[in-house]
Amino acid sequence: MVNLVIAAVTGIDTVNTPFGGVCEALGGAAVYSSLAASIFTRTGLVSVVGEDFPEDHITFLNSKGIDTKGIETKPGKTFRWKAHYDYDMNQAHTDETELGVLAGFNPNVPEEYKKAEYLFLANNDPRIQRKVLDEVKPKFSALDTMNYWISNDRESLVDIIKDVDLILVNDAEARQLMGTHNLVKAAKQIISLGPQAVVVKKGEHGALLFTDSKHFACAAYPLEDVQDPTGAGDSFAGGMMGYIASQDEASEATLRKAVVYGSCVASYDAECFSIEKIKDLTRAEVDARFNEFNSITQF
Amino acid sequence: MVNLVIAAVTGIDTVNTPFGGVCEALGGAAVYSSLAASIFTRTGLVSVVGEDFPEDHITFLNSKGIDTKGIETKPGKTFRWKAHYDYDMNQAHTDETELGVLAGFNPNVPEEYKKAEYLFLANNDPRIQRKVLDEVKPKFSALDTMNYWISNDRESLVDIIKDVDLILVNDAEARQLMGTHNLVKAAKQIISLGPQAVVVKKGEHGALLFTDSKHFACAAYPLEDVQDPTGAGDSFAGGMMGYIASQDEASEATLRKAVVYGSCVASYDAECFSIEKIKDLTRAEVDARFNEFNSITQF
Repeated sequence: MVNLVIAAVTGIDTVNTPFGGVCEALGGAAVYSSLAASIFTRTGLVSVVGEDFPEDHITFLNSKGIDTKGIETKPGKTFRWKAHYDYDMNQAHTDETELGVLAGFNPNVPEEYKKAEYLFLANNDPRIQRKVLDEVKPKFSALDTMNYWISNDRESLVDIIKDVDLILVNDAEARQLMGTHNLVKAAKQIISLGPQAVVVKKGEHGALLFTDSKHFACAAYPLEDVQDPTGAGDSFAGGMMGYIASQDEASEATLRKAVVYGSCVASYDAECFSIEKIKDLTRAEVDARFNEFNSITQF
Repeated sequence: MVNLVIAAVTGIDTVNTPFGGVCEALGGAAVYSSLAASIFTRTGLVSVVGEDFPEDHITFLNSKGIDTKGIETKPGKTFRWKAHYDYDMNQAHTDETELGVLAGFNPNVPEEYKKAEYLFLANNDPRIQRKVLDEVKPKFSALDTMNYWISNDRESLVDIIKDVDLILVNDAEARQLMGTHNLVKAAKQIISLGPQAVVVKKGEHGALLFTDSKHFACAAYPLEDVQDPTGAGDSFAGGMMGYIASQDEASEATLRKAVVYGSCVASYDAECFSIEKIKDLTRAEVDARFNEFNSITQF
């Protein structure tokens, strides 16, 4: 039984960093977040690929216990993303985006997924996010978004933010969304719209969790070797939602642990290119880093 | 008896931020770091001012229990700094610097200070830092520096780094100093030169403490109102060294607590203009925020 549904983009990535690169690799938020989430709970994907999408990739996802009934194959090409990183690895520079089958996609949620109680809506058109939210009707939902939607369809975005439980944004997006420079104020204003919690992702600087009256500051795991941060934000979100779904509750204590688990998975992701590291990541490895987080933040 | 000696610049600051400004205000690393340190321990200053320096400022520092015997008055003008901040309050933009009596200054350390066991060498010419270090011969010393000295006198800087116990740098300076983009590697390389520990200050993103085999990640206190970050780095260093001196030891546990205490004082500093907040800051207020740090970082 699928416990967590993730609606997200599946893509083919070509990425270069100062330390190397990958060409035409399996990628997209769907892949990173579901690999991360599946460490914790049974996860199903709502996504779309083109006829060029290698069947091997589906077989691979299934071998990781990820349900792919919700991945539709449409005539045309799979979404492609070409990007590079400079030494400031906090910032991806997009060189080319090919929408392919993403253009005009209207997702169908498999009947079985509608029984899932947890939903992660990765970055997408807020009207598509709304459709999936209304069909799944989960107990607890999380939403990620990007500057593009804040600039181009703030109205639809705010409309869905009101109805989800957890918002994931980076610091610039939080500021842009609420029109205030101060992160704490921006987070409080987002919460005043409806959500129970806001997580502000700060990349190599960690993450902040804001709830009604409290906040939690999670430092990042200091990495000696960052090879490729692609998917770090998505594996953070997937790990976080996977953990919450596995606990079947979203108390303050669970949300804090979920932020740390998300940070653990994201830190592993950034250590290797593409999905190299997280594709075989075990719960034991994640727990080991969770314990290390404990020791590096105690005073 | 002076327990901690701070050798640093005393200045007159004119600072504007998007939220207001101050004109010809008492400032400089000497003032911020000694105000912070004096919350924890008896502190004496080695510094220089011009004949234009208001006697009231000396009276004020003495009223805070700060020993000013080591502040020399020289013919000429006090050091002046004019700067502004934009909405990215992590970055000060210097508009004007007037060296005044700083030019050619050669500090004299009062005999009494030579009995002090703790020394903080704030940012300055490494040759001046060396002279003070050799005269005080402390049990435990900390050194701050800046990109200017890394670019212009790396040799003298590395020479003194070998002989101090704790290095305080920001992330860009750590990278520049060791010529590596990765912070963890840069910190390890600094430690291999001789110091027991390196603190990487990341402003609103917190601080990292590196020791021989361990690291400690300290998140920043999330501030709802940042008015003026001037002096935050110096009050961090002063608070950190003041706490270490008050404990009279520098174990890993003490260094971690000292980083948190430094962060507490720095967070108070940034909440108001100039020295407005930290000039009357009490140990009770600092302890209250220390406890809050505890609660916002537990998971």
